Amino acid sequence: MRFEVTILGSSSATPIYNRNPTSQVLNVNERLYLIDCGEGTQQQMLRFDIKASRIDHIFISHLHGDHYLGLVGLLSSLHLNGRKKPLFLFGPAPLKEIIDLQLKYSETVLQYPIEFTPTDANKIETLLANEDVTVDTIPLDHRIACTGFLFREKKRLRKLIKEEIERLDVPVHLYTAIKKGADYTAPDGKVYQNDLLSIDSATPRTYCYCSDTMPVEKYYEQITGADLLYHEATFLNTMLDRAKETHHTTALQAGEIALNNQVKKLLIGHFSARYKVLDELLEEARSVFPDTELAIEGKTFLI
Amino acid sequence: MRFEVTILGSSSATPIYNRNPTSQVLNVNERLYLIDCGEGTQQQMLRFDIKASRIDHIFISHLHGDHYLGLVGLLSSLHLNGRKKPLFLFGPAPLKEIIDLQLKYSETVLQYPIEFTPTDANKIETLLANEDVTVDTIPLDHRIACTGFLFREKKRLRKLIKEEIERLDVPVHLYTAIKKGADYTAPDGKVYQNDLLSIDSATPRTYCYCSDTMPVEKYYEQITGADLLYHEATFLNTMLDRAKETHHTTALQAGEIALNNQVKKLLIGHFSARYKVLDELLEEARSVFPDTELAIEGKTFLI
Repeated sequence: MRFEVTILGSSSATPIYNRNPTSQVLNVNERLYLIDCGEGTQQQMLRFDIKASRIDHIFISHLHGDHYLGLVGLLSSLHLNGRKKPLFLFGPAPLKEIIDLQLKYSETVLQYPIEFTPTDANKIETLLANEDVTVDTIPLDHRIACTGFLFREKKRLRKLIKEEIERLDVPVHLYTAIKKGADYTAPDGKVYQNDLLSIDSATPRTYCYCSDTMPVEKYYEQITGADLLYHEATFLNTMLDRAKETHHTTALQAGEIALNNQVKKLLIGHFSARYKVLDELLEEARSVFPDTELAIEGKTFLI
Repeated sequence: MRFEVTILGSSSATPIYNRNPTSQVLNVNERLYLIDCGEGTQQQMLRFDIKASRIDHIFISHLHGDHYLGLVGLLSSLHLNGRKKPLFLFGPAPLKEIIDLQLKYSETVLQYPIEFTPTDANKIETLLANEDVTVDTIPLDHRIACTGFLFREKKRLRKLIKEEIERLDVPVHLYTAIKKGADYTAPDGKVYQNDLLSIDSATPRTYCYCSDTMPVEKYYEQITGADLLYHEATFLNTMLDRAKETHHTTALQAGEIALNNQVKKLLIGHFSARYKVLDELLEEARSVFPDTELAIEGKTFLI
């Protein structure tokens, strides 16, 4: 099953050096989930050939402009391009008010419904659970209310051991029950334990998105063991004081968080405009956590 | 005196084919005036090396997203980049409410003042008059309240005729009075008429920005004789019904407006997403008004 993230923007605060503000598209089993939507996100989608019409779920972490100012334009374009199916939007409660105000004054009545779910930065909530994925909020610690998002693949059903199923001539109508863990009672009354007939499916993969935040204990448990952790790394550690003051993370800290929480792979982003070249940020994170990559626009990372 | 306009975006409604939503920068005597600010305008300024910090005046025609959704991002970037001097903003009254709401929820207190002047689409008003230029609104006819803008160079003082001034030994302290039209009385009591001592300065040039609108009589007088008219030409004339329905103009109509109102040069823009190539729009406008150009991003047009 496809489970990968494409970076649309990874600049913090202001667009610069051809780096756009934060946005990512997660592809889970060919469904697209948009995470944050900085200004210019719809232009980035055109650039990287990502069809906005395929997005049904949008997650906004917080209400700093670099994470959501592209949203109203995107919603409007979907409307103008004929969207009819619902769009599920998750973000801080005032986001709805901001959208509604702008639609009101442009006298736009969207042709499709927005199903809005407000997030609460004070507790972990499950925002979504479908056949592919569950999405939980990750309460972060930023200057304003902010949540990350934890995407966890849905656990697949067990896989039938074809040879045994055929050897025992198990009726087809029992396959699903066995995939779900049931034992099998043969016509002669003999009971076959489930693990003789099926094997466990792969462990569900997880993608954690943590931006913007300072490093604080409270979200470490949720990200532990993540297959891929996107973590903001706004500054080099020489700017630690500035990072603390603005509730951000340094590249060194991001590496430490990945290391200490047994993350499998780390992706850093949300780069400050002061860094024209990003090598030093990458080197700093890699100095503690070698399997680190930069969230470069247009790049896709398998999870 | 420099008087030229650089196109930052000329797509209508949605960004497409690398065309961004509407925005232009007018340079009048090295002062920059921003006209409309669609999503991605600040990225376009970076791309075309236009320093946002040099902009002191922003004019927003109306509250359809493709004309203003880049504004809050730009205002925020100016703040983050340390702007302290006031910014003068002109646009429909609710624009202030939209900005304030977004600043409120991002908990941003701008470091510089915004001096906001609401526009009234029902009457002509002078928004600005400084040593270089006056700016009047042009009430247009769109689906929602919308004004264009008429930029008229300030009439310069008369130019002294150096040879006569020297021959008559006119005292330097009288130069300004003569430039302003005064006659000169020599020590012997003889009066020299002003037009013997000075010549009229050039006729002030005008730039008219008309987007979005359907073609209606009411604004023709204001644009008559314009040195450069930017007029929207959203559709080909084959889409005339659609143009009427959406209160837009066709390329043919834009050409006719330029012709009938003795405009010197026409610039068309606000191209519908249905036109990947713009040649036909240009040809159609030129069929009635040959001196027409396309508002291509990054191009600068002298006025």
